[in-house]
Amino acid sequence: MLIRFGLIGCGRIGRMHARNIAAHPMAQLVVCHDLIADAAEACASELGAETAPSVNALLGADIDAVFIASATDTHVDLITRSVQAGKAVLCEKPVDLDMRRVEACEREIGSLASRVMLGFNRRFDASFQALRNRLLAGEIGTLEQVVITSRDPEPPSPRFIATSGGLFRDLTIHDFDMARYLAGDIVEVQAIGANLIDPAIKEAGDIDAAMIIMRAASGALVHINNSRRCAYGYDQRLEVFGSGGMLQAQNQHPTTVEVWNGECTHAQDRVPHFFIDRYADAYRAEIGHFVDCLSNGKPFLAGFTEGKAALQLADAALASLASGRVETVEHGR
Amino acid sequence: MLIRFGLIGCGRIGRMHARNIAAHPMAQLVVCHDLIADAAEACASELGAETAPSVNALLGADIDAVFIASATDTHVDLITRSVQAGKAVLCEKPVDLDMRRVEACEREIGSLASRVMLGFNRRFDASFQALRNRLLAGEIGTLEQVVITSRDPEPPSPRFIATSGGLFRDLTIHDFDMARYLAGDIVEVQAIGANLIDPAIKEAGDIDAAMIIMRAASGALVHINNSRRCAYGYDQRLEVFGSGGMLQAQNQHPTTVEVWNGECTHAQDRVPHFFIDRYADAYRAEIGHFVDCLSNGKPFLAGFTEGKAALQLADAALASLASGRVETVEHGR
Amino acid sequence: MLIRFGLIGCGRIGRMHARNIAAHPMAQLVVCHDLIADAAEACASELGAETAPSVNALLGADIDAVFIASATDTHVDLITRSVQAGKAVLCEKPVDLDMRRVEACEREIGSLASRVMLGFNRRFDASFQALRNRLLAGEIGTLEQVVITSRDPEPPSPRFIATSGGLFRDLTIHDFDMARYLAGDIVEVQAIGANLIDPAIKEAGDIDAAMIIMRAASGALVHINNSRRCAYGYDQRLEVFGSGGMLQAQNQHPTTVEVWNGECTHAQDRVPHFFIDRYADAYRAEIGHFVDCLSNGKPFLAGFTEGKAALQLADAALASLASGRVETVEHGR
Amino acid sequence: MLIRFGLIGCGRIGRMHARNIAAHPMAQLVVCHDLIADAAEACASELGAETAPSVNALLGADIDAVFIASATDTHVDLITRSVQAGKAVLCEKPVDLDMRRVEACEREIGSLASRVMLGFNRRFDASFQALRNRLLAGEIGTLEQVVITSRDPEPPSPRFIATSGGLFRDLTIHDFDMARYLAGDIVEVQAIGANLIDPAIKEAGDIDAAMIIMRAASGALVHINNSRRCAYGYDQRLEVFGSGGMLQAQNQHPTTVEVWNGECTHAQDRVPHFFIDRYADAYRAEIGHFVDCLSNGKPFLAGFTEGKAALQLADAALASLASGRVETVEHGR
Repeated sequence: MLIRFGLIGCGRIGRMHARNIAAHPMAQLVVCHDLIADAAEACASELGAETAPSVNALLGADIDAVFIASATDTHVDLITRSVQAGKAVLCEKPVDLDMRRVEACEREIGSLASRVMLGFNRRFDASFQALRNRLLAGEIGTLEQVVITSRDPEPPSPRFIATSGGLFRDLTIHDFDMARYLAGDIVEVQAIGANLIDPAIKEAGDIDAAMIIMRAASGALVHINNSRRCAYGYDQRLEVFGSGGMLQAQNQHPTTVEVWNGECTHAQDRVPHFFIDRYADAYRAEIGHFVDCLSNGKPFLAGFTEGKAALQLADAALASLASGRVETVEHGR
Repeated sequence: MLIRFGLIGCGRIGRMHARNIAAHPMAQLVVCHDLIADAAEACASELGAETAPSVNALLGADIDAVFIASATDTHVDLITRSVQAGKAVLCEKPVDLDMRRVEACEREIGSLASRVMLGFNRRFDASFQALRNRLLAGEIGTLEQVVITSRDPEPPSPRFIATSGGLFRDLTIHDFDMARYLAGDIVEVQAIGANLIDPAIKEAGDIDAAMIIMRAASGALVHINNSRRCAYGYDQRLEVFGSGGMLQAQNQHPTTVEVWNGECTHAQDRVPHFFIDRYADAYRAEIGHFVDCLSNGKPFLAGFTEGKAALQLADAALASLASGRVETVEHGR
Repeated sequence: MLIRFGLIGCGRIGRMHARNIAAHPMAQLVVCHDLIADAAEACASELGAETAPSVNALLGADIDAVFIASATDTHVDLITRSVQAGKAVLCEKPVDLDMRRVEACEREIGSLASRVMLGFNRRFDASFQALRNRLLAGEIGTLEQVVITSRDPEPPSPRFIATSGGLFRDLTIHDFDMARYLAGDIVEVQAIGANLIDPAIKEAGDIDAAMIIMRAASGALVHINNSRRCAYGYDQRLEVFGSGGMLQAQNQHPTTVEVWNGECTHAQDRVPHFFIDRYADAYRAEIGHFVDCLSNGKPFLAGFTEGKAALQLADAALASLASGRVETVEHGR
Repeated sequence: MLIRFGLIGCGRIGRMHARNIAAHPMAQLVVCHDLIADAAEACASELGAETAPSVNALLGADIDAVFIASATDTHVDLITRSVQAGKAVLCEKPVDLDMRRVEACEREIGSLASRVMLGFNRRFDASFQALRNRLLAGEIGTLEQVVITSRDPEPPSPRFIATSGGLFRDLTIHDFDMARYLAGDIVEVQAIGANLIDPAIKEAGDIDAAMIIMRAASGALVHINNSRRCAYGYDQRLEVFGSGGMLQAQNQHPTTVEVWNGECTHAQDRVPHFFIDRYADAYRAEIGHFVDCLSNGKPFLAGFTEGKAALQLADAALASLASGRVETVEHGR
């Protein structure tokens, strides 16, 4: 079964997803829409798709699924309209920066939420999936600790910071989701943050480094550390520790070359600069998973619920920053 | 400029190349031919190409280039006819197993040899290229030693062995080419071989393990070690040692996951099973290089000369096996 | 100048220190004392020392320094009597489990505190020292994050747990000191703990796993993770992350051997089982440092102040466990 | 049983051995001799031993064993006199540079050869021993290939070169022994050499780089590569490859610290500069083995036979350099 896609949002990320859709043997990019008509036109003409002048026109086209890669504050509206138009949805994270709007959306779409997949790309990284599968298969016994290292190569522009929802809702959201992916539901969150990198980030009311500790319902403990700057590239590591041992997913490197010289030995390449390179395969696998779920009636590995739950943890971490205390997280509310 | 390809030989390897051609934005698979018509048909229909009932028909089609992936003993004839028909050629290694036929071909096609690229896929591996570029850039000073480790995961069938030309012309041919890629012309070859794995290989008159030492015209020394069996996968490593240090290209692994447990630590995945997986990216890059050279008038990184020179080293190694002494290699003969 | 030592406490740890003293070219073990006379006798006769029937007798001997390796609850009394008898002191950590007793001791001995060195052995590990020296030399710019992984191979007996002062004062005390060694004074502490390993530890009122986040006065953030059990040995790693990069001190392995086979590749030995093996060289270097400081009038790298400060952090972590909130730490009180 | 040692040769190496003897709990350095009386005096006074004015005086002392660390051309005479005086002998490698003298010595001392241990220190390196033990235990099945990498950090002085016996008898002798340690008797040797480093070495009639391939009686193939210069330190690696997998002994590093920065990642320390540092523990273990064998009537892991066999391989390699062909090695001659 060929899955026919409409794409809303043809910026840099949307364009990458468009190419991945077009390259997938069981997917077809049918129609594109963007507020900037030229962006939609460029994307469509590169990949042999049509353009739609409006979201309504796009939703009226003969498509099975909508990929939402537009601005964050449009997600809730577009998710709602898309599922109500009978389409499956693959939406870039987050659902929204405001939990009240997420909950309103959830109420509005009801059981159609099962038609929505969230673009938590890291769930589809081959190394992270292999680590998780081996963890779930019991290779290290009962899970006791998770350590997530997640450092961006460089801070975004102050302008972006202002609308980002802050470090926890923008960057850490991926790590909160990864924590849930590995350890299940989280019940307690404590966070400390700092301004160590760029004064402009502080002026924008945000932090640029953070450490978080959490407790999972299973009893496992979780640590996340974050930085908005990392000299050696985009640092993305996982460690899961259990009663029988430890699994680590190390950083990836562009080549396997090591140099030994008068200064040092074993020196490898820096890690990929940022997410577009680091997760190129994961983004492709994400499309593949979505297509596979639609074709074969499987549930999404990252549904609406995951989007909401990650935001809930971000909010709890923010509350902990303010209160200086452990914040408990209530599930199923 | 779009390069239009005809493909001769639609077996497993030919099919892989066909897909890489089809996926390249500046290449198009136009027509396929195979002695087994069904194989050509399957390949053509998958990728939207035509089939040609004969080589002549294929050469008569509107194509710029011929990819030769047929049986080794057809290469010389097909190379000759293709270049004489005005086509560029990308031919799977080797040119031929018999140096006299290679030299006859060389005389026959004359200056058209510059239109022939040999499929020495490893030259296009990102890690090996990075290692070579850093070597050529002087990062480790003057090259003094090269160590090439090249071990297949498992021996081919005895039937294949019988027509393979033997270990040196079949397996080591890639390593001889790699030696030249890294160290330049080779002037002396000594080899020892052994039968350690499969008695059927000995019965077929071949060896299944070997060690070779060589001297380059530059003065650098080169070691190659080979095995027809390797318990942990397809072992493909390079080490270049110079006056200022060493570069190594390590094996690749499917994921970055390591396990630590009661038995061991740092345990990683096995290496990829064989060349189709290990060099998937290199095969794609090989097509890309060929297209780029044709489009932009650049010389091939692996031309007819490289095919002949690698065979010359294989023959010298065979001679050394028989003579028990160092064999000198004469260039430009 | 030869430093003449008296040793109080000839159990397993005391015996190890005795041998290190005896093996040091500028140190001499002169006299031993233990409540169990046979233990003192065995130690003395092995190493050619005398025994003293009482602490007073030992303090009356012709010695320059006292090594205190007796039970924790004797440390304050023995430190006090030793320095008041004019001896330098090298005391196993901790000073005491009760901050009020530590402060009383501090008041009692006054400026003689400068004569007391605490046995924070990890400060003398070659890898940890190299990491710290390179950090202090500015190799990774300004320090922003510290991650300390510290997992014991197996839990102590419930009987030991009962008198240990709890995980933070017994095990984490080393990590608190390491945090201060790398990041300087700590101003905020948050902790979560769990019982994941042995119900008997819970019954004894203690935890067996923990995660801690802290803020240093410098602004740097610090994470410590602890477990009372670790399948692959005694896990002891450091990571310091700064504006210009990262330094890691990895675990040590008994040999450099790696195995590649049909199951895995790069598999190394387990890490050393516990502190006696892991820090054998560090314990020797600790004696060397003490002797060097006494001989050359240098201050100790780990004085009475470090002992008190580490306990203060342990107490703050315990308070955080109870309060569920960040605890601030006041210095110089 | 305490083993009482006399030491002949109190230069840098002799002095190191003297300290190791003195530090061993079951060994005692009783008497030292050196042609330079001051050297013997310095060594003796440091370690509480006597000096002997002559070899005869030393052999007349109340000693069980003689450690011979004098110039190579004195070894045969001193071995002979020592064993004939009833002493066990631990002699630095080589027995002699001239096979005729070695064979004459062998005839002269007859069955007393069993009282002679050769100082092939690498056999006592913990990593190399672990690799060998695991190989012998069958962990990688049947041995098929051995790769020995052995590169000195810098060339010796031309004056030393002149009396060294050449690269194969001076440096490679250790690798020849290691080949036999791992693969057993060697039956074929081929070698190529080069002058890549220092013209003075060429003028002295020696080479400064070499590659060797050999066949063991077992059928296994062996490669040795050598250089008189190595930018990153003293490169000492082993690889054994068998039907079931591979074991590698990697280089050692002074610390476990790795740096990640804007230039590279995973960069470790250089390897130890030279053998005194790299094999410090092995030299201690060598003394321990000798003492253990004498005390418990065990055969030496490296006897007179090993000294002769390694020289035989060095001579075969030299012959191969001259003849340009494989040289066969006859055993038990």
